Amino acid sequence: MTDNTAADDGWFAGVDADDLESATTAIREGSADEPRDWPTLAVESDFAADEDEYYDALRAATTDATRRAVTEREAADDRQLVHAVRAMDDCTRTANELAERLAEWAGTVDPDAGTGVDYARDLVARGDLEPGQEPLVSLAERVASLADEADALQTYVERQTPVVAPNLAALAGPVLAARLISLAGGLESLAKKPSGTVQVLGAEDALFAHLRGHAPSPKHGIIYTHDAVRGTHPDERGSAARAVAGKLAIAARVDHYSGERKPDLEAELEERIATIHARTDDNGGDDDE
Amino acid sequence: MTDNTAADDGWFAGVDADDLESATTAIREGSADEPRDWPTLAVESDFAADEDEYYDALRAATTDATRRAVTEREAADDRQLVHAVRAMDDCTRTANELAERLAEWAGTVDPDAGTGVDYARDLVARGDLEPGQEPLVSLAERVASLADEADALQTYVERQTPVVAPNLAALAGPVLAARLISLAGGLESLAKKPSGTVQVLGAEDALFAHLRGHAPSPKHGIIYTHDAVRGTHPDERGSAARAVAGKLAIAARVDHYSGERKPDLEAELEERIATIHARTDDNGGDDDE
Repeated sequence: MTDNTAADDGWFAGVDADDLESATTAIREGSADEPRDWPTLAVESDFAADEDEYYDALRAATTDATRRAVTEREAADDRQLVHAVRAMDDCTRTANELAERLAEWAGTVDPDAGTGVDYARDLVARGDLEPGQEPLVSLAERVASLADEADALQTYVERQTPVVAPNLAALAGPVLAARLISLAGGLESLAKKPSGTVQVLGAEDALFAHLRGHAPSPKHGIIYTHDAVRGTHPDERGSAARAVAGKLAIAARVDHYSGERKPDLEAELEERIATIHARTDDNGGDDDE
Repeated sequence: MTDNTAADDGWFAGVDADDLESATTAIREGSADEPRDWPTLAVESDFAADEDEYYDALRAATTDATRRAVTEREAADDRQLVHAVRAMDDCTRTANELAERLAEWAGTVDPDAGTGVDYARDLVARGDLEPGQEPLVSLAERVASLADEADALQTYVERQTPVVAPNLAALAGPVLAARLISLAGGLESLAKKPSGTVQVLGAEDALFAHLRGHAPSPKHGIIYTHDAVRGTHPDERGSAARAVAGKLAIAARVDHYSGERKPDLEAELEERIATIHARTDDNGGDDDE
């Protein structure tokens, strides 16, 4: 879906791809609403040398329009997803930062002050601090509101990621999938990254420290949050991260270039991770690195 | 107010200072509810050698209790102020961060998308984005809500600072005064800082870079936001910053140790700044550094 030449505004441009597809069928079968002999008209008007050339041109235009429509839709959708997951992370982060400020402040007037978003929600529910402490209750309300917004955005991400990237969402979970798309800057960009880059996405600081010779190469970036990586014995975590990154890179390509579901990918990853786990279980971590 | 020895829990400890003061008067004037001859009792019970010693002891205890009560009240109030101004800055910062995220996102679907908190407020007021863009309107509501919280906290700070530190509030404005108290960690701590430290409060990064030999010494920290510093020609800004810091340091000491208003401080600062301005106006910036 990379052949998206915006300058190519031919005579089928702007026509919906599905309409074109059904129109082609209708013309072939002679069942269009106003039956007209388009192939003959095309030949008579010198648009095509014969019927075959007419159908070739029609098919090429149809395919191109479909491809362009899909690419544009995907680009619009994955861009929305990227913004949603970034906004989600921003809301979570700011809710936590303000919750920390709230806890410090509340600790000076409320001997039972707790911490975090949970304490903010408690305070809102109780609403029983003395007068003069309204600023604290008000601040707690904003914290709870930001946490609610993060929850709402997560629901949105969980609904949209499987639409934009069904295989990636199935393999990585919708939130991690969205974060990978976000870190890469889009699904197309993620689909073009080698597996080794996918493996360290989100660990750019550690990677650059490594490239400057200050640190060991990072074994994983944000894919650390994947159960198959986090749930693997530290000795084999590098292998697990490589296996997960490899399958996620393939899933991103399938999602971008075809969009079809390939449940085999999940089975293959499970099998690979089972093999890696068996290795640590059997001989105590003979790493293949 | 520094002589706040918590261990000194004598027989007047825990008694309200005002009660003690009126009790003293009542005893002196013989008008206490149950008239008893306390001075004579004190001498008879060997608490005091004579009446004078009794009244001296009573006066010392009363003064000490008053001082302790004031110090504790000040500590409680300036601590609340510190939390309020920090929460205010947190709300402003997070509102701006989320507004930036909102503007980026909105730019992909709304050709008229603006930026900042103002755009968020516009979006909430309009509420007319297409369905499917509810996340944007919802996010805009959180941004507006955080900005409202910052405004409410600023109102609180503007009301409380003149109570906690009347001279500092008058000289610096209530918000800058609260930020200085916050940066120092309290009014008492600010009152103990030399003027040169007050001058660079909030410019710690630049100061440490200077101390490591990497940078020139900073001319001003957060007092840059004071009109008398910002409004002065760059050539004389160091002089203005020193003058402002000097008066603010004195104001903090007066506020902490006596609490009385000294309007002279403002007049003196105005005069000093006028002199500095006259210098740049006259001879184009002969800096006295």
